[in-house]
Amino acid sequence: MTTIAITMGCPAGIGPEIIIRYYADRKDPDTIPSVVIGDIGILRKCIDELHLNLQCVNWEPGSPVPDGVVPVLQHSSLDPQKLIWGQPDIHTARAMAGYIESAVNLVQEGTIQGIVTCPISKDALQKAGYAFPGHTEMLASLTGSAKYAMMLAGNRLKVTLVTIHCSLKEVPGLLSTEAIYELISTTHSALTVDFGIKKPRIAVAGLNPHGGENRLFGTEEDQCIAPAVHLAQENGIDAAGPFPPDTVFFQAASGKYDVVVCMYHDQGLIPFKLLHFNDGVNVTLGLPIVRTSVDHGTAYDIAGKGIASHESLAEAVKLAAIISTNRAHASKTIL
Amino acid sequence: MTTIAITMGCPAGIGPEIIIRYYADRKDPDTIPSVVIGDIGILRKCIDELHLNLQCVNWEPGSPVPDGVVPVLQHSSLDPQKLIWGQPDIHTARAMAGYIESAVNLVQEGTIQGIVTCPISKDALQKAGYAFPGHTEMLASLTGSAKYAMMLAGNRLKVTLVTIHCSLKEVPGLLSTEAIYELISTTHSALTVDFGIKKPRIAVAGLNPHGGENRLFGTEEDQCIAPAVHLAQENGIDAAGPFPPDTVFFQAASGKYDVVVCMYHDQGLIPFKLLHFNDGVNVTLGLPIVRTSVDHGTAYDIAGKGIASHESLAEAVKLAAIISTNRAHASKTIL
Repeated sequence: MTTIAITMGCPAGIGPEIIIRYYADRKDPDTIPSVVIGDIGILRKCIDELHLNLQCVNWEPGSPVPDGVVPVLQHSSLDPQKLIWGQPDIHTARAMAGYIESAVNLVQEGTIQGIVTCPISKDALQKAGYAFPGHTEMLASLTGSAKYAMMLAGNRLKVTLVTIHCSLKEVPGLLSTEAIYELISTTHSALTVDFGIKKPRIAVAGLNPHGGENRLFGTEEDQCIAPAVHLAQENGIDAAGPFPPDTVFFQAASGKYDVVVCMYHDQGLIPFKLLHFNDGVNVTLGLPIVRTSVDHGTAYDIAGKGIASHESLAEAVKLAAIISTNRAHASKTIL
Repeated sequence: MTTIAITMGCPAGIGPEIIIRYYADRKDPDTIPSVVIGDIGILRKCIDELHLNLQCVNWEPGSPVPDGVVPVLQHSSLDPQKLIWGQPDIHTARAMAGYIESAVNLVQEGTIQGIVTCPISKDALQKAGYAFPGHTEMLASLTGSAKYAMMLAGNRLKVTLVTIHCSLKEVPGLLSTEAIYELISTTHSALTVDFGIKKPRIAVAGLNPHGGENRLFGTEEDQCIAPAVHLAQENGIDAAGPFPPDTVFFQAASGKYDVVVCMYHDQGLIPFKLLHFNDGVNVTLGLPIVRTSVDHGTAYDIAGKGIASHESLAEAVKLAAIISTNRAHASKTIL
């Protein structure tokens, strides 16, 4: 049986309320068994303020996952009276980092089969002493993964990113044939194993306008992107490109490709969020553990107001369960 | 009466066939009067090969624009037998540059009221001795315009670009408070006068992931984008930002803003083409003449096959006529 753990994310963000909304909206018993790693006091505060009829119960690792309630592995005991929505502090920051560490331990032990993370504040993460630019990098470090990648997944578009959390200025210097080839290869494996696509069709975006237009607007396409695509093709991967970035996403969304390998954060996230603003899922590829995430931030400006959508969380839980099942199936097939 | 001139673009590209399709599809007499500046032999070759029932007639500047036919100002006499679709050469390159020069002359003389350009090959343009990175820059030079800007316009999304045809690497170095403010200001004027929007709501995108996330991923937001937005606000413009690039386009497409001011080519064109792949229009703002363009390239790979869509051309002609009418109205109002 697959059990998914949802980490609560920043207690002062929209994490608690989307979790509550998700459980309130679940159709048991069809729903995937899931537990929350977080803070029962904050979740109850949320239930009260949103006037919902829902119970939180303490859950201990290894015990059965009850239906019809919110099972919570209590990992922080913040004072609900002192917490102000939208205002993270050092206590919420430390708590939020702890949820992630605990979830990784549980999945490594085999108690749970996948992690779904709610949004954290990267700024708070760093202030709490965790020198990671984001969730993904922290999970990679906790699981000792050198090769990992971020995928944003939706039913119309999937994208993976060669560079992620860096300034735009740094992007060209971070691209190399090796890094791009590694991502194409990781993307190929993930689509094959995690998503169960037999022969994934991978489009690789260029870096520059019009894909460099014969080196008039940049040379990275010739220098490292095209060589990486050739290398992938030589290794039997159905990869094509580099394509002009401004047309490849329309082609992919129209069904011509299963995924677009992107050179930088916004190249992939701009088209992805345009199509999947509410229902997009962030998946970390290449980790030994299954991890998906909502693809939005802490949204401090609307936290506690009860207006945040839990659609992305629901999709993220579904996808974590699918990947976990596909991986289990693939490992049995290999054995 | 507004007459629009359509320049044929690269004779070996899809320009001739989308023009023919456009005229074949027109609903006279409701349609905007328009003439083609191009090559009657190539257009007839196109009509023959596509088995259409349509006549091209010679048109001379100043004479009436006939209905139900394709009026052509003959500006090159290429050999239709020698022209191979998808294969531009020095003759097609020179011809294509000549159409643009001729159109600018006619509009400056007042014979026509606006130009709609079909796609050119920037590579061929440079080989023909015109050292411009694109159409827009060539038109700016021909009309002596120092302050001009590219807008991509559709009914769901409009974007303008601070930097256009340069490598991604060059973008950060080209941004300045002045350049961004100038574009916000040009965009504001164009939306007010050319598009007739009384108080345009302008969103300004950041450059970096998450808009720099408190300087973790870049400093351009603080250094030049935010100051430009403030300057615009001080000058009475309804501008806001810098916004995280990955969410602002969804907000604009949802109706919250009339336009997004973008820092680089693909930041604007990726979301724009995702929403307006077939019906997008490229508009040059800040020129003394009215110019719109199809927003796609020469598409050499499909030229002559009769499968290219003329939707963008039809929208571009419509928009050129609207802008021309709005400008005439605004100048009367001012007088």
